Amino acid sequence: MTGHGGNIYEASEKTGIPEKRILDFSASINPLGVPASSAAVMKKHISMLPHYPEPFAERLCLHIGRHYRIDPEAVICGSGSTELIYLIPRALKPKKVLVTAPAFSEYERACRISNKSRIMSYELKPGNNFDINPDGFISAMSGDMNPSLITDHSSLPFDMAFLCNPNNPTGRLLRRRDVVRIADAARELKCCLVVDEAFIDFCAKESVIKEVGNNPYLVVLRSMTKFYALSGLRIGFGVFPQRIVELIKNYKEPWTVNSLAQEAGKAALSDAAYQQASLSMMKGEKKFLENHFKRLAVDFVPSSANYYLVRSGNAKNIISSLGEKGILVRDCSNFHGLDDTYIRVAVRSRRENEILVKELSALWPA
Amino acid sequence: MTGHGGNIYEASEKTGIPEKRILDFSASINPLGVPASSAAVMKKHISMLPHYPEPFAERLCLHIGRHYRIDPEAVICGSGSTELIYLIPRALKPKKVLVTAPAFSEYERACRISNKSRIMSYELKPGNNFDINPDGFISAMSGDMNPSLITDHSSLPFDMAFLCNPNNPTGRLLRRRDVVRIADAARELKCCLVVDEAFIDFCAKESVIKEVGNNPYLVVLRSMTKFYALSGLRIGFGVFPQRIVELIKNYKEPWTVNSLAQEAGKAALSDAAYQQASLSMMKGEKKFLENHFKRLAVDFVPSSANYYLVRSGNAKNIISSLGEKGILVRDCSNFHGLDDTYIRVAVRSRRENEILVKELSALWPA
Repeated sequence: MTGHGGNIYEASEKTGIPEKRILDFSASINPLGVPASSAAVMKKHISMLPHYPEPFAERLCLHIGRHYRIDPEAVICGSGSTELIYLIPRALKPKKVLVTAPAFSEYERACRISNKSRIMSYELKPGNNFDINPDGFISAMSGDMNPSLITDHSSLPFDMAFLCNPNNPTGRLLRRRDVVRIADAARELKCCLVVDEAFIDFCAKESVIKEVGNNPYLVVLRSMTKFYALSGLRIGFGVFPQRIVELIKNYKEPWTVNSLAQEAGKAALSDAAYQQASLSMMKGEKKFLENHFKRLAVDFVPSSANYYLVRSGNAKNIISSLGEKGILVRDCSNFHGLDDTYIRVAVRSRRENEILVKELSALWPA
Repeated sequence: MTGHGGNIYEASEKTGIPEKRILDFSASINPLGVPASSAAVMKKHISMLPHYPEPFAERLCLHIGRHYRIDPEAVICGSGSTELIYLIPRALKPKKVLVTAPAFSEYERACRISNKSRIMSYELKPGNNFDINPDGFISAMSGDMNPSLITDHSSLPFDMAFLCNPNNPTGRLLRRRDVVRIADAARELKCCLVVDEAFIDFCAKESVIKEVGNNPYLVVLRSMTKFYALSGLRIGFGVFPQRIVELIKNYKEPWTVNSLAQEAGKAALSDAAYQQASLSMMKGEKKFLENHFKRLAVDFVPSSANYYLVRSGNAKNIISSLGEKGILVRDCSNFHGLDDTYIRVAVRSRRENEILVKELSALWPA
């Protein structure tokens, strides 16, 4: 049990519905599925699996460097960005870490088990769509404590902060200029700011990936498992400033990115047709879902990502009713800062979205 | 650069020979290649890659439990056994660790970066085929220092020791009863003994995997990348005593074993035909190589594994001459306790072994 979404195996066991027939709205994965280009290179590469992978995915790093026009030496690939979420605190050993509440729970777990770091939460407010206020976040990083915004007090300065942009599970986006402003403040404070852009491919212009070269306290994490629908394969990467990239590499374990992930990743990055199709499909499906949410008076948070945070006093029943039919949504009750009235729902294909809307119609008003 | 063998990518770049045509004797992988059963399930499973893997490979653990008749709750799967080599010292935080010299270098690196552990080497002697003397190893673990056998002194007791059986790169085997004796001593000393059985599938009767249930200080690591030729996919597992299994799980990162590795692993374990064919092929090829080594007066260490440690005053030239032809062997000069006269050579298919023997004939006597 990880307390995350996307466990179709458990759902299948519980319901008796075969894994392939589970509709998974609980993990936010591109419904176009594995790019055909990636699938083709994987099939071809199976016979090469007796060979070890490149130890540090060197050529994939080059590929990423070219694709994003960044220094490939600054790139470290991981077995999903999760590996890097754990690697960073292990190498940098932060004493006090700022995270938002809600946020992806692995930031906190990684810091706790790596270095017994003190974790402080910057609480996001439902009244404000859980938006991150850049000035508020900077104040919190600076140690200007506002009892309503931060859950613990200590004179120790923050030496690490995590931002997820767009945030998970809210889908709320900080604009590029605001993230840059926060990163500038982090630099002044000598606090390492880790910006997790796992879901930014759907609004890629807002990425700060190119800023890492200019800010020795900025780290950007990217996932290739969401936009490229390769969650099962495990692939992500981080972009690190020169100041710390060698230190991080000193802690990196070899061979963590399997060969098929490396091959599939290179193919996916080159697959402009898939990228275009994904963006246009997502735009249409988000419109479709939003229209129906409005029609049904579903209380949802407007989102820049491929998922929505939805609120209902009847969330528990909705989750279990859908679950019985093999429809998984993300129960958000275990996110710090949320309660059991919140659900996260991924944007899926039209066919799946129609099924979801139909089921929700029967369950709403909640 | 990891300083390990098996980097066909680097070799291909250096020589201009395509990766597929590199003959890799530097990594010790079953030359039968990916089991057909594993390849088939992988191809079938590619369309399922949008889904996350089971977070802790739960069903593969069950499969392993059934296959080896051990408690599945004691099994933790990793992205190769390398993940577990790093996970163990991270969780157990050993202060002082005993390793053999030579041994797989990741034990030492893992302990150093996880916990800045003090590492002491139990030096194996060429005159004795680098055999591990069980009584000597027990004495060393007990802190009975013999200046000729151990490289550092300190009054701190050992709280962790690594044994690789058969040892890498020597191929020398400790019999089951001797490992059990060492493990019993480790238990008395409250020293966690990690037995890495990465290459034991070729002499599986000597495994102590079933002893873990009886000894709270014994951990056994197994690889599925060597015998099942799945190095590129990353898959291994550890068997842990009840005393520490939950602690280790508390430090485990989620989703590290990709879905294809989980599927391929389950198929491989069930593939009795592949297992039989591998054992019988390996027996024949080892005989073939040994006969030719003797004919050429190659100075080799008799081996229980699928590789040989070979000595030649001309090793450097041999390695580079073979390298130019796209034939990789393992330069062992970076193993603690060896020097630049040692080479490790994997046992490959008859066709490849014939090529190696032919090339060595031209280079020997060295």
